[in-house]
Amino acid sequence: MARPLADLTLDLASLRTTYASGVSPEAVLDEVFARIEECGDPGIFISLAEQDALRSAARALGGKSDGRPLWGVPFAVKDNIDVAGLETTCSCPGFAYRAAEDAVAVARLKAAGGIAVGKTNLDQFATGLVGLRTPYPVPRNAVDPALVPGGSSSGSAVAVARGLVAFALGTDTAGSGRVPAGLNNIVGLKPTLGAIPTKGVVPACKTIDCVSVFALSVDDAYAVFSAMAGFEQADPFSRAFRTAPLGPPPPRFRVGVPTPSTRSFGGDPAAEAAYEATLADVQALGGELVELDFEPFFAVAGLLYSGPFVAERYEALRRFIETSPDEIHPVTRLIIEGARRFDAGQAFGGLYELAAMKRALSIPLGLVDCLLVPTYPRPRTAAEVLEHPVGLNSEFGTYTNFVNLMDLCALAVPGRPRPDGLPAGVTLIAQAGADARIAVIGERLHEMGGTPLGALGLPAPAAPERAPRPAPDEIEIVVVG
Amino acid sequence: MARPLADLTLDLASLRTTYASGVSPEAVLDEVFARIEECGDPGIFISLAEQDALRSAARALGGKSDGRPLWGVPFAVKDNIDVAGLETTCSCPGFAYRAAEDAVAVARLKAAGGIAVGKTNLDQFATGLVGLRTPYPVPRNAVDPALVPGGSSSGSAVAVARGLVAFALGTDTAGSGRVPAGLNNIVGLKPTLGAIPTKGVVPACKTIDCVSVFALSVDDAYAVFSAMAGFEQADPFSRAFRTAPLGPPPPRFRVGVPTPSTRSFGGDPAAEAAYEATLADVQALGGELVELDFEPFFAVAGLLYSGPFVAERYEALRRFIETSPDEIHPVTRLIIEGARRFDAGQAFGGLYELAAMKRALSIPLGLVDCLLVPTYPRPRTAAEVLEHPVGLNSEFGTYTNFVNLMDLCALAVPGRPRPDGLPAGVTLIAQAGADARIAVIGERLHEMGGTPLGALGLPAPAAPERAPRPAPDEIEIVVVG
Repeated sequence: MARPLADLTLDLASLRTTYASGVSPEAVLDEVFARIEECGDPGIFISLAEQDALRSAARALGGKSDGRPLWGVPFAVKDNIDVAGLETTCSCPGFAYRAAEDAVAVARLKAAGGIAVGKTNLDQFATGLVGLRTPYPVPRNAVDPALVPGGSSSGSAVAVARGLVAFALGTDTAGSGRVPAGLNNIVGLKPTLGAIPTKGVVPACKTIDCVSVFALSVDDAYAVFSAMAGFEQADPFSRAFRTAPLGPPPPRFRVGVPTPSTRSFGGDPAAEAAYEATLADVQALGGELVELDFEPFFAVAGLLYSGPFVAERYEALRRFIETSPDEIHPVTRLIIEGARRFDAGQAFGGLYELAAMKRALSIPLGLVDCLLVPTYPRPRTAAEVLEHPVGLNSEFGTYTNFVNLMDLCALAVPGRPRPDGLPAGVTLIAQAGADARIAVIGERLHEMGGTPLGALGLPAPAAPERAPRPAPDEIEIVVVG
Repeated sequence: MARPLADLTLDLASLRTTYASGVSPEAVLDEVFARIEECGDPGIFISLAEQDALRSAARALGGKSDGRPLWGVPFAVKDNIDVAGLETTCSCPGFAYRAAEDAVAVARLKAAGGIAVGKTNLDQFATGLVGLRTPYPVPRNAVDPALVPGGSSSGSAVAVARGLVAFALGTDTAGSGRVPAGLNNIVGLKPTLGAIPTKGVVPACKTIDCVSVFALSVDDAYAVFSAMAGFEQADPFSRAFRTAPLGPPPPRFRVGVPTPSTRSFGGDPAAEAAYEATLADVQALGGELVELDFEPFFAVAGLLYSGPFVAERYEALRRFIETSPDEIHPVTRLIIEGARRFDAGQAFGGLYELAAMKRALSIPLGLVDCLLVPTYPRPRTAAEVLEHPVGLNSEFGTYTNFVNLMDLCALAVPGRPRPDGLPAGVTLIAQAGADARIAVIGERLHEMGGTPLGALGLPAPAAPERAPRPAPDEIEIVVVG
């Protein structure tokens, strides 16, 4: 017997319509659990919430939406983010603990009416961009099961791409919220550093970690981001950024793109062609392309794993790695123990280098409204990555690693498709606080690209028509005297 | 034969009047060099500029002021700040190099018409608050030669207090621009971090180093600060702070002071009485005293020497300390080599602790317009400090160490005098960017305290009457609609 909600797409607008028609959140939960079982991929979730408890929570929402932005919306949470009552494993069973409280981000989603259905797989300790560094089964890429799912937020990206939940939380320190979005044809929003509190998230690099959002559309991702954003006194890395409401895209804007000699596609002409097709879309949209030498951006990335910043990962796990080294995935351990070669002076030296690089890059960044890069040079199969676990992981991070260190925000969207149907995403990048600016451009590029939604065979969402509206604190002023 | 300018006080107003009367900058330079010789303290300057070259520079200014704010004003420079053509020693002869260029701060002072007459003694590598950690003769405290001069900017503070120059540059990482000001009855301005570029300054802790100003009055110190402040693209730690012009003091303001149980005067009742007398002045001025628990501020200070931040000092000198350890003062070396026990993870751990402390302290800081503390618990003799070189150095830093780590600005002024005539300074402290706010309060307290100027036997300067004036970027606005 066909399930009554089997055809429901779990985007926010469809859910709202469904609820308005009288369907209950419990019925949607039943459908979610049916899909999770039906999809037959044991690698996506590490744990699921107890269904009876969730049904009680759903009943407690009341029969009809009270207008909260995420009323009755089922979502998944990467398993390095605390959900009260569930284990947080970071994909390392020996590290696991049962969370007593929700992370601030999760608590805010619940307060907005959302329902957390389970915890998703990841590259252990959020260290990796491939999705293979886990002792659990690897989530299957939603577009092509031969490909890696991408990481570190592998399960969250696949869960959204396969329509199991409306959205999912990831984290992003070096690309973990973007690479898997790109590899699964969905949207990945890496907000401005500190805009979403990270209290209750197991740190990777505490100074640059972000909670990220995977969704089917930019509109949804931005709504979820807005529900989580806001200053939190108890989180020392939280900042008082205000999320601006989305308006129409700017009529003209300047987009920094790598010079041809600083573009890299790992020798994949289809990846290159797809990127160039998206650049044509940008120009059609009013974007002026400004070629920038990307070597200095790539040099920033070198600090992250070859430089002392890896010591942030060590510091986050110091006690565990020193007492239970054998519990850690061998590749992950190799990377994190690399921190041992740096002394405290070198850590500060890395900060000085970063400060100098940021200052130097403020000049090219000041010339443009945003950057547009491929999300990754090219997709890779699991077989390829297993053969070159560190080298190809680094390749995936080419266009993502520098973003967090530079205090930039980013948005990965499906771009123009490749002829072979493999995923071909692009990422918009801008200064801290410019999340809204890249969102309105990104949703147009998503629509123009025409890539089907996730792995659902549905068309890319139309970018909503947006009326210009002033931000809440905008007033008109007249200068006198 | 009496020198014609022997009675000239070298504050900026007196110099302007003198120049307006037709005296030449060369004549003032002659007087400066005569005073340096006459004062008979070989510990103040490590090197002097070549007199003929300075006279040529003075002649090049032209016979009459062109209106530049420091036209013909002689100043001294701490010997960890580059002056082109002179050696920079950091009080370590083995480290010395001849500077090819002026530090940005010095270049800006020269551009404003100032004349750099020489380089002053310091606690080696700006590590210390006592002024004794130098292989050169120790500068004599200007108020009482039995006392330590204070450091690390010892020579600069004494040079100003003895009237040898109009002002002097120091640096301030942990109190080096305030403690010696307090111990020599003069003003020490520690500006907002990044407001004055540090390019051309030998780093101590690069992330928190500031160039500071010693002067006879707040008005002079602020004028010199304003001449040096401003963004510098080539300095990654420079920030775009604007110096506001000084207005009248606020009619009412809230001043955070330590609760009685978190005040410490090293058992010196005269120090305590002097501080309390200044608190009465604050109240008379319209300040409401708000008692704050200072233990959390003192805990921040613990990060600086007991925690991993000392590794910044190590990193700044890594090559030198690893190749020429014996060239370093034994106490300085002991402190800086303490960094070796910290690994890179611990350096990041220190940054996390600092971030948490800053966040927690944002609450009490949000309750007040500024803090007012003693500049140091009590003055100490050189004999006492030589017996307890590290412990008493730390005592001097009680009220100064936390300031730079917390990204605060500060201003040390002479407060109410002690009955025994020993120096008794107070320090105002405020949020980054609030340099002007504490300046206008500080100059009133200086006047009310009535402490004689430096060691010159002249009365404390009257605080100028200041008309309210809008900042250059202030416009009147009318809200419409």
